[in-house]
Amino acid sequence: MPDALPHIVILGGGFGGLTAARSLVHAPARITLVDRHNHHLFQPLLYQVATAGLSAPSIAAPLRQILRHQRNVTVLMDEAIGIDLAQRQVQLHRERLDYDWLIVATGATHAYFGHDDWGPNAPGLKSLDDALAIRRRVLTAFERAEQEDDPSRRQAWLNFVVIGGGATGVELAGTLAEIARHTLSGEFRRAQPRTANILLVEAGPRVLAAFDPELSARAQRQLEHLGVQVRLGHAVTAVDQEGVALDGQHIAAHTVLWAAGVAASPLGRMLDTPLDRAGRVQVQADLSLPDHPEVFVLGDLASVQQDGRPVPGVAPAAKQMGQHIGRLLAARLRGDNRCLPFRYRDAGSLATIGRMAAVAQFGKLRLSGLPAWWIWLGAHIWFLIGFRNRLVVMLDWAMAYWTQERHARIITGTDKRADHE
Amino acid sequence: MPDALPHIVILGGGFGGLTAARSLVHAPARITLVDRHNHHLFQPLLYQVATAGLSAPSIAAPLRQILRHQRNVTVLMDEAIGIDLAQRQVQLHRERLDYDWLIVATGATHAYFGHDDWGPNAPGLKSLDDALAIRRRVLTAFERAEQEDDPSRRQAWLNFVVIGGGATGVELAGTLAEIARHTLSGEFRRAQPRTANILLVEAGPRVLAAFDPELSARAQRQLEHLGVQVRLGHAVTAVDQEGVALDGQHIAAHTVLWAAGVAASPLGRMLDTPLDRAGRVQVQADLSLPDHPEVFVLGDLASVQQDGRPVPGVAPAAKQMGQHIGRLLAARLRGDNRCLPFRYRDAGSLATIGRMAAVAQFGKLRLSGLPAWWIWLGAHIWFLIGFRNRLVVMLDWAMAYWTQERHARIITGTDKRADHE
Repeated sequence: MPDALPHIVILGGGFGGLTAARSLVHAPARITLVDRHNHHLFQPLLYQVATAGLSAPSIAAPLRQILRHQRNVTVLMDEAIGIDLAQRQVQLHRERLDYDWLIVATGATHAYFGHDDWGPNAPGLKSLDDALAIRRRVLTAFERAEQEDDPSRRQAWLNFVVIGGGATGVELAGTLAEIARHTLSGEFRRAQPRTANILLVEAGPRVLAAFDPELSARAQRQLEHLGVQVRLGHAVTAVDQEGVALDGQHIAAHTVLWAAGVAASPLGRMLDTPLDRAGRVQVQADLSLPDHPEVFVLGDLASVQQDGRPVPGVAPAAKQMGQHIGRLLAARLRGDNRCLPFRYRDAGSLATIGRMAAVAQFGKLRLSGLPAWWIWLGAHIWFLIGFRNRLVVMLDWAMAYWTQERHARIITGTDKRADHE
Repeated sequence: MPDALPHIVILGGGFGGLTAARSLVHAPARITLVDRHNHHLFQPLLYQVATAGLSAPSIAAPLRQILRHQRNVTVLMDEAIGIDLAQRQVQLHRERLDYDWLIVATGATHAYFGHDDWGPNAPGLKSLDDALAIRRRVLTAFERAEQEDDPSRRQAWLNFVVIGGGATGVELAGTLAEIARHTLSGEFRRAQPRTANILLVEAGPRVLAAFDPELSARAQRQLEHLGVQVRLGHAVTAVDQEGVALDGQHIAAHTVLWAAGVAASPLGRMLDTPLDRAGRVQVQADLSLPDHPEVFVLGDLASVQQDGRPVPGVAPAAKQMGQHIGRLLAARLRGDNRCLPFRYRDAGSLATIGRMAAVAQFGKLRLSGLPAWWIWLGAHIWFLIGFRNRLVVMLDWAMAYWTQERHARIITGTDKRADHE
């Protein structure tokens, strides 16, 4: 690839960055995609890795492999630590890149709203490493309960608190209830996994606030049917190794999971432009920066308003933004400098709760229970990258459905928390 | 289960310990199986996890799940840190167990023969965590090569040294060669994975010393055909972050893997009885301790001589010992105290080298190449625990065979070594 071609640097290989790279397949440009991981992650199924239903490689594919035939792309496993807008340079850990066009798609991470000390005791779920750490914690808790004679101390190992009633919190809580009631049933001789309490805490008035109130209510009923206790309108005020404080009440629980808040990637602060409250970059209608038409921001890092409402931080929105920027850059490279405003097309919302339990919302159509679950299943398998991954995930789910088993119940690494007990 | 029943404690859930537990399914006894991991590991395929061909859960199954229907077994995820033969007690991290019968099956770990400082730069392969650490190192090395401009520094990332020419070393070296030549081909834009050097170093006169000399020679030819350089009769004298010293010559290599030595579990030293050079316990003909007929040792931790030769430290031998002890204890529980000496039945030896390359030895029959590989494949899939694991491994291998892809090419965790570079 001659160096004379314009150089497009894409930071982040998630749904937005990867889609942008792929939609530039015919562009007369050199493209460099930088991600600190070697893989694209199918984040909507990350909770399944955390709850031992899927193995890590089933929901991840190496970025190099996805892009191996796209000869205009170079993939680097590295991380941007600085952006110089004036010089048009990105500083990585191991090298510095000059760019003609920059696409920043580094997404969001979980945030503790000023309580970073909660982190070690309430891990969040954004990367495969997070998921494997949560899996380790959850499975180890049942193991510790089996070896604890004192009833109240045993119960502290069997109490699970999930903070945050959005999609991730609902998925985690519903799946934990299934694990305790079905998967582990009959495998312990001293402790009773069925006596586990799964508590879902949401500070707002309902779970799945992005859905219609009616679907939120149905989701809550499905959760309760699975055995989850749902506590609405309550905020956690403290988290430590022994449990959480909830409106002055202390709940003893060694396993607390955080699904309450996300904050945009810190790269946003290097772009010299206004951010919203969550740290997202306020982009122009075409997703470029106000004073830098050569810099684009997309996905969870971008704050985009449409018809007076924010475009949601979901995978389809990030993909559509990636496509939009790809199309726009292809036009720019042809010398077409027209402004192409981004329009988000809402294809509907889906959230799963557990075995045969989900909610779905497509325009005016509202579904819950089994029909919604089938749609969720089909959509997630369909969008999984790679034929093999789809096949293995289908197989895993078919087996899990019939046997109520979860095949990835393997503890790797060490649970530091449990060692200190 | 009434406490009056005799208590059998089994330390270790590998092939030996698990087989012993299963063969006591009808015994009128309480059985406690202790393992520091929550899973039984199918160790013969561990190198496939290390080289990204299989995911960790594909070769591991939770011990609780395997034994869920065997109501006389309690599984504890814990570790023995002391054995009191006089009091008949085992001290674990979290509790103390009284036993009537003790089966010690804690196997072996890798050993550096007095060079423990080599460990961080030459990881060995015994657990899933080891395998995931090796996978991370190997995949990260190619990523670093892509970002290194200096040719000699780049080559140091593309040089791989495997120390030890036994089955594990041969499998690792052969698979690394395939990864460099086939799997990664076409995915890098700056570095050329094909220029990787895979060096297999063996201090003895031939690879696979447990096989016939003729099969060792065939294995070496197959390795060389795959692109591995085999260096026999040479010993590594130093290992550090920059590479290895081999007979005074320095070889620059950031990735060094250790497959040279194993040492028996340190529990052997607590048994107050003579050990052999490798730290294995010299047991009686029935696998019990000389002065303690209620204590048995089996598998890689036991030193057993038969017809003037040691019984090899392989999975079939450990399983046979587990069965033997199960049968013997069942007799003891019926009041039959006859001595039942253990006899090892050699079912043959198999070692794989790479795609369509293996060696096999059954009595007088010698096979190599494709026929040996098919037998190896069938045997390993057949003996994999759990229907699902078999199915997924078959699927993975069928896909890998046709596409030359390796689906588990996912880097999780952090490569500390690479961070220091």
